Amino acid sequence: MSRARAVVLVSGGMDSCVTAAVATRQHDAAFLHVSYGQRTEGRELQAFTSIADHYRVEKRLVVRLDALARIGGSALTDAAIPVPDADLGRQGVPVSYVPFRNTHLLAAAVSWAEVIAAEAIYIGAVEEDSSGYPDCRSVYYEAFNRLIEVGTRPGTRLEVRTPLIAMRKSAIVILGLDLAAPLHLTWSCYRSETLACGACDSCALRLRGFAEAGTADPIQYA
Amino acid sequence: MSRARAVVLVSGGMDSCVTAAVATRQHDAAFLHVSYGQRTEGRELQAFTSIADHYRVEKRLVVRLDALARIGGSALTDAAIPVPDADLGRQGVPVSYVPFRNTHLLAAAVSWAEVIAAEAIYIGAVEEDSSGYPDCRSVYYEAFNRLIEVGTRPGTRLEVRTPLIAMRKSAIVILGLDLAAPLHLTWSCYRSETLACGACDSCALRLRGFAEAGTADPIQYA
Repeated sequence: MSRARAVVLVSGGMDSCVTAAVATRQHDAAFLHVSYGQRTEGRELQAFTSIADHYRVEKRLVVRLDALARIGGSALTDAAIPVPDADLGRQGVPVSYVPFRNTHLLAAAVSWAEVIAAEAIYIGAVEEDSSGYPDCRSVYYEAFNRLIEVGTRPGTRLEVRTPLIAMRKSAIVILGLDLAAPLHLTWSCYRSETLACGACDSCALRLRGFAEAGTADPIQYA
Repeated sequence: MSRARAVVLVSGGMDSCVTAAVATRQHDAAFLHVSYGQRTEGRELQAFTSIADHYRVEKRLVVRLDALARIGGSALTDAAIPVPDADLGRQGVPVSYVPFRNTHLLAAAVSWAEVIAAEAIYIGAVEEDSSGYPDCRSVYYEAFNRLIEVGTRPGTRLEVRTPLIAMRKSAIVILGLDLAAPLHLTWSCYRSETLACGACDSCALRLRGFAEAGTADPIQYA
């Protein structure tokens, strides 16, 4: 029996890699990557390609959005706003928040899923142990699933799944190791495309996850 | 007192032009146009520019999406699928439906609205007298407003408004005339960029609207 198809949003970061490991066990996976003018766009695309090669995924789509970089308002898309050092105790939404970004990514995933008849979309959003982005919370994905229900062709059977949403980073690392996810191929740093900086929010969350999991991060840091 | 800012999605068609006429009376309007590889992309952008000039709108953003044309699945974005002649009695979703398109457009509008602190987004969606697209129904916009509520920065005050959603095309024509909307600058045809074909769904709905309103359409047809 052929497996049901799923679209997996693969940014190239650790969370999306572990999500891909989960999704590929159950589904005929189609990998989607979105370049949106973020600082480390080229390095993330390289990580995407390596992860897709690792899982021997044939159905791939790489799309390019110019809206978010044109709009700016985030340290990730506006070169004039520096990426700050991590402050994991900080309250509120950090300057790395890209306004409403995940809706752009999911819109592409839903359009593709409708055309290739996928029944699920996987995204590696994390609410529990995260930077505090509003579009990484469960309540956002519940609202998005309602939008799919009313905004696609009648009869479409499709939902967004967020297997990591309630996991701490350390649990994500352990799950990744359990599933033999190629964490060495991933890229999480917000700042650099050569050696990960180790100091931005994304590096700091990742490093803390590996430390709490009691294992070494296989990528190199500056 | 300065007026509150609103983002207006202006495709260049009649419905978006009348929506712009409504929005500009109440708001400091910022006009957004999205090119997504649709057949008549160049002609629509020209109509957008003419309408923005007419309303002397300074704040304009034109963005380009490649996802929808890459994904295809619609007569508007896939050159291999012809745009059929109109069949206004048809049931179901027509082949001109671009899967989940309005979510892409609204995602750009919300990201921009967050950055420029707009309090409303206007879109000329029509449910009553339309082609039957799922993402042109009230229920979709209710779900989208919920998504904005949970997917943007806390404290964001922003909603999508659809002033035409329950209007027949003839009422939209009459409202446009009442508000002196520049209908002569608009472009609705799905097929042609020179003379409107008069035969596709979009032309047929428009022509029926003018006929029922008892007035002549100011644009030329083949």
